Amino acid sequence: MSEFFSSKYKNLTPYVPGEQPKERKYIKLNTNESPFAPSKNAIKLANEQAEKLFLYPDPDCKELTSAVAQELGVSSENVILTNGSDEVLNFAFMAYCDKDNPAVFPDISYGFYKVFAEINCVPYKEIPLKSDFTIDVDEYINSNGTVFIANPNAPTGIALSLSEIERLVSSNEKRIVVIDEAYVDFGGQSAVNLTKKYKNLIVTQTFSKSRQMAGARLGFGVADKEIIADLMTIKYSTNPYNVNRMTAGAGLGAIKDKEYFIENCKKIIENRNYTQNALKDLGFTLTNSSANFVFAKSDKISGKDLYLKLKERGVLVRHFDKDRIKEYNRITIGDYQQMQIFIQTVKSILEEI
Amino acid sequence: MSEFFSSKYKNLTPYVPGEQPKERKYIKLNTNESPFAPSKNAIKLANEQAEKLFLYPDPDCKELTSAVAQELGVSSENVILTNGSDEVLNFAFMAYCDKDNPAVFPDISYGFYKVFAEINCVPYKEIPLKSDFTIDVDEYINSNGTVFIANPNAPTGIALSLSEIERLVSSNEKRIVVIDEAYVDFGGQSAVNLTKKYKNLIVTQTFSKSRQMAGARLGFGVADKEIIADLMTIKYSTNPYNVNRMTAGAGLGAIKDKEYFIENCKKIIENRNYTQNALKDLGFTLTNSSANFVFAKSDKISGKDLYLKLKERGVLVRHFDKDRIKEYNRITIGDYQQMQIFIQTVKSILEEI
Repeated sequence: MSEFFSSKYKNLTPYVPGEQPKERKYIKLNTNESPFAPSKNAIKLANEQAEKLFLYPDPDCKELTSAVAQELGVSSENVILTNGSDEVLNFAFMAYCDKDNPAVFPDISYGFYKVFAEINCVPYKEIPLKSDFTIDVDEYINSNGTVFIANPNAPTGIALSLSEIERLVSSNEKRIVVIDEAYVDFGGQSAVNLTKKYKNLIVTQTFSKSRQMAGARLGFGVADKEIIADLMTIKYSTNPYNVNRMTAGAGLGAIKDKEYFIENCKKIIENRNYTQNALKDLGFTLTNSSANFVFAKSDKISGKDLYLKLKERGVLVRHFDKDRIKEYNRITIGDYQQMQIFIQTVKSILEEI
Repeated sequence: MSEFFSSKYKNLTPYVPGEQPKERKYIKLNTNESPFAPSKNAIKLANEQAEKLFLYPDPDCKELTSAVAQELGVSSENVILTNGSDEVLNFAFMAYCDKDNPAVFPDISYGFYKVFAEINCVPYKEIPLKSDFTIDVDEYINSNGTVFIANPNAPTGIALSLSEIERLVSSNEKRIVVIDEAYVDFGGQSAVNLTKKYKNLIVTQTFSKSRQMAGARLGFGVADKEIIADLMTIKYSTNPYNVNRMTAGAGLGAIKDKEYFIENCKKIIENRNYTQNALKDLGFTLTNSSANFVFAKSDKISGKDLYLKLKERGVLVRHFDKDRIKEYNRITIGDYQQMQIFIQTVKSILEEI
């Protein structure tokens, strides 16, 4: 830290993304990427835009916004596109959290919520998950802050039902509730339709996981038009051209290739079922994941050791060195062959101890 | 604005990008884009990355950072890549401005500085340009805030000499000085080398103008490694994957295609000379622009009227409705044919009044 760095950030701890080692080729099950190639249509439209790079993108992203809105059954004025869903989450922290409006989120969830609170210098409260790692919705009823809930939650994969989400949102009509649906397409119930009924609800989603575009950085928020106007004010005050031409093209191609999207989500769910059953057969305890990852622990080996031994053998999973979950690993669901190798590798590790 | 919007932003006025009308085809001389296609090498590498979109980009952008550093004659640890140079400018406002460190910049400059100050809730001071629109460096000596200077300045195009920049930087050793070099490749003197000598200097540049990539969103900051580490802390606390795969690919292709870069800068300078001379022949007063635009007024027609009449005739330029400069228009330098049409159109407008 330089002598010039603002004292407001003196306690800031940045987010740590999953490791991306280059020294050897791993089976990468650590960052919840899709194992499948992007839609051919996405690649085609991205390439078309590459020819036009000398011109600024449309800062309103009209064409893509309209296509996303149509897919979701809402209007364009209910959608904002961002540079990954991290950006729309940060916009929500900026717009709706301040010293009188603390951020409220589970103690075990997407690690970035805490960082967003810190970078925006706003107070925050972490509410413990129940002992079975489920979210206790009662703790968020009539909340005294702006609520951030990942649904399904990460890294547990556990989803809240739509009725539980509605109970939470309807009890907080004077507070913004953000439902982060990065993983919803793998088995959760989306709250997008509730944005038509509740003015205090923001739903965020991403093209990174179920649409094979982690490398393109495209996310979006869905909400009442007044909320979207607030978020647009933030966007036009930080980076109006936040979504570049190629990403907007790829997004348009991907959103229109619905068949490929459905087929890939189906495959991930099948591979998740295979992985869950195989891990149970090996004695693992698993949460009930509705995401493109599973969260599992063994009583034969510590979470850290399993992570390290898998890495030695060329399989990367994600381990969080955090008290309540340190015996677990989060394992991204890859293609069937990757999951077979993963299970074989786990088996051989357990046999050796 | 919704009822939920944080009161800290109640006076926030977002930036207004140059208009991008879709209803007809214009000769677009209003947003300082390049008239030339991106480097073929940039397109090729962007397309290669589109195939890999299912994987996250490298958050450290190692390969591109190294290529940019090499081109500039600095080390990788002295460079941060961002989603356009707007992002690195905002990072600098976040890291180095607070209630004790106001932002200081000219009253006539890039309009976003004021917005960055407002979105970060930091005080700012606008220092008037001299009557000839030059920056009075004496006003920034031993400044009581963090200094932001566009060099060449926008929308005037007037450049400060490197010795004037050094005088400013060296007199502010306890303050950060940001030199925004978005337009430097068209005739300014870059302060990049001074970052080796002064720990308080940040130089920002962009691929948008001289490297034909406004649509890709790629900018960067150059500074002492401790400063870059601060800015990296901000990046990893807002959006670690801020630069997507395709943009990083395009950037790598562009930075290595030096011949094309030099050739295009040369063409812009030639077309600027042609435009300046032709406007002078028509009785216009011009600033001495070192950028890819000229800033001109006529005593025969108001700035606003000329802008409107040009627009009617299919030529877009940028008019700023701001007291000191409202008689001027900022005209982006396009290709030779575009500038010929522009001059012919101005001529016919003047003949009609």
